Amino acid sequence: MQDLHQFQEIFEKYLAQNAFRDEPQSLYVPANYILSLGGKRLRPAVLLLANFLFDESVEKSLPAAFAIEVFHNFSLVHDDIMDAAPLRRGQFTVHNKFGLNAGILSGDVMLVKAYEALLTCHSPSILAVLKQFTKMAVQVCEGQQMDMDFETNASVTLADYLKMIELKTAVLLGTSLEIGALIGGASIENAQLLYEFGVNLGIAFQLQDDILDAFGDPEKFGKKVGGDIAQRKKTFLYLKAMEVGSEDLKQKLTAWYQENNSSEADKIKAVLAIFEEVGIKAIAEKAKQTYLQQAIAALNSVRAEAKRKKLLESFAYNLMARES
Amino acid sequence: MQDLHQFQEIFEKYLAQNAFRDEPQSLYVPANYILSLGGKRLRPAVLLLANFLFDESVEKSLPAAFAIEVFHNFSLVHDDIMDAAPLRRGQFTVHNKFGLNAGILSGDVMLVKAYEALLTCHSPSILAVLKQFTKMAVQVCEGQQMDMDFETNASVTLADYLKMIELKTAVLLGTSLEIGALIGGASIENAQLLYEFGVNLGIAFQLQDDILDAFGDPEKFGKKVGGDIAQRKKTFLYLKAMEVGSEDLKQKLTAWYQENNSSEADKIKAVLAIFEEVGIKAIAEKAKQTYLQQAIAALNSVRAEAKRKKLLESFAYNLMARES
Repeated sequence: MQDLHQFQEIFEKYLAQNAFRDEPQSLYVPANYILSLGGKRLRPAVLLLANFLFDESVEKSLPAAFAIEVFHNFSLVHDDIMDAAPLRRGQFTVHNKFGLNAGILSGDVMLVKAYEALLTCHSPSILAVLKQFTKMAVQVCEGQQMDMDFETNASVTLADYLKMIELKTAVLLGTSLEIGALIGGASIENAQLLYEFGVNLGIAFQLQDDILDAFGDPEKFGKKVGGDIAQRKKTFLYLKAMEVGSEDLKQKLTAWYQENNSSEADKIKAVLAIFEEVGIKAIAEKAKQTYLQQAIAALNSVRAEAKRKKLLESFAYNLMARES
Repeated sequence: MQDLHQFQEIFEKYLAQNAFRDEPQSLYVPANYILSLGGKRLRPAVLLLANFLFDESVEKSLPAAFAIEVFHNFSLVHDDIMDAAPLRRGQFTVHNKFGLNAGILSGDVMLVKAYEALLTCHSPSILAVLKQFTKMAVQVCEGQQMDMDFETNASVTLADYLKMIELKTAVLLGTSLEIGALIGGASIENAQLLYEFGVNLGIAFQLQDDILDAFGDPEKFGKKVGGDIAQRKKTFLYLKAMEVGSEDLKQKLTAWYQENNSSEADKIKAVLAIFEEVGIKAIAEKAKQTYLQQAIAALNSVRAEAKRKKLLESFAYNLMARES
């Protein structure tokens, strides 16, 4: 029986063989650079796994897996410019290493190259694949715009936030699964269920991210605990506390988020104390579990071999068990 | 009989009805803004005309015409960032009006929206359309990168330049015609001939641009005559002079292009004098005519009603007769 790790390996090999070799090099070297920074290749791997649910031969999904990974990296390159991020996975971001123009244009060509790869898929479902991919790509742009708008918008609600993370990150996971299923020959209904599985899992994953950022074990969490608070990010924790907290507590929280004179450590400590007071960790854990259960329920409804579906279930639980 | 002007009007109406209305507005307002700045809508109009060569009912090509115009405007938005251009058609560029991030992300979503529009075309040739569009989009990125690379590359040849303008601008015109033809039901061969017509016409158009910039009538030419020289652009005129000039003349030309201490007016005057000495205008005119004749020859080989083909021939000659 295959497992996720094997699909990651199959994809990594394909990716290495399909590095961009076109000219001009100044356009494609930055694209190969960002793709070489690694990451777990989870999206292409689950795309292959979704194909495997319906058809053991997953090779025909490799160009689509490549498209999803290239699209994801296009969005990282452009997001890093917009966030003025100097580093990505401990290495220079593309615009920081190659300049702004290289970041913009290499990102652009990667987006087009993702379509080029999709268009090489020999599948009767190719038009459905292209439509779902395109719908997802629009949503990722909309989610990124919402995320940027939130920085200067004082009236963001928890519903806005959940919509934003759905668009910005969860639909990409859902669409990866849906595309793999479609190419594997799944029915529209089964493909749609896998999309639901992926979107709900993606939201649960993002809530997990919010929780770890505030309550993670500093020994195990790769980044600094409290980073979101230091950056005044309106996460699930913050927005939920603003929803359920007393007037007094909301005022305190707002004040700490606007505060400029205290040290970062003091700010993190004070906000965490407020979060504890409202019991926000338990609320967030519960919300995360709800999305996870919705994901599992969708997966359970998929008509495919139970042993194979188990692979996706394990993937979901492993994703939720992470501590960094 | 329809003429190009009527297709421009049909398209303009369609464009107005299809302004982006999605959320978040901060993403789509900049996209609608650039599309509202006008331009002659030549690419979508010739796309409809190419459809008309083979089928009078051009409505089915409107989404593809929209895709081409939206793609073109995406490339303008990102190019303006890369060129740090403050103005476009006398108005603020998108990044200048809405900020860098809006320019990047609105451009991105326009590129995806172009695909979204193409995917609504009900045509048996849809996959061929998508493939040709994607090939063109990759080439436009490559052409823009070559153009940027040329600024710091001392060894650019005339062949490099011709390749660059083919990729950066001519293939878009060629692909517009090809897509319209395909959706109109043309054979692959006829569609390919219209592509050849468009690419050769696009190159002739760019050479015309180079000629007008140096030798245009200041009364009729909208921009300042000699602008390319002031910006040290390696145009057809410069590169051809470097190819055919004597050693002495090449040294003089190189020196003037590197010169920093003279006034702009002196530089333009001196370079124009060198161009005259080599007879560069006549050489460029001849090259332009060669590309134009290749375009017309391709058009002549298209199997379609002569009266309709005449519309594209007139379009080509009108384009070449422009003085601004």
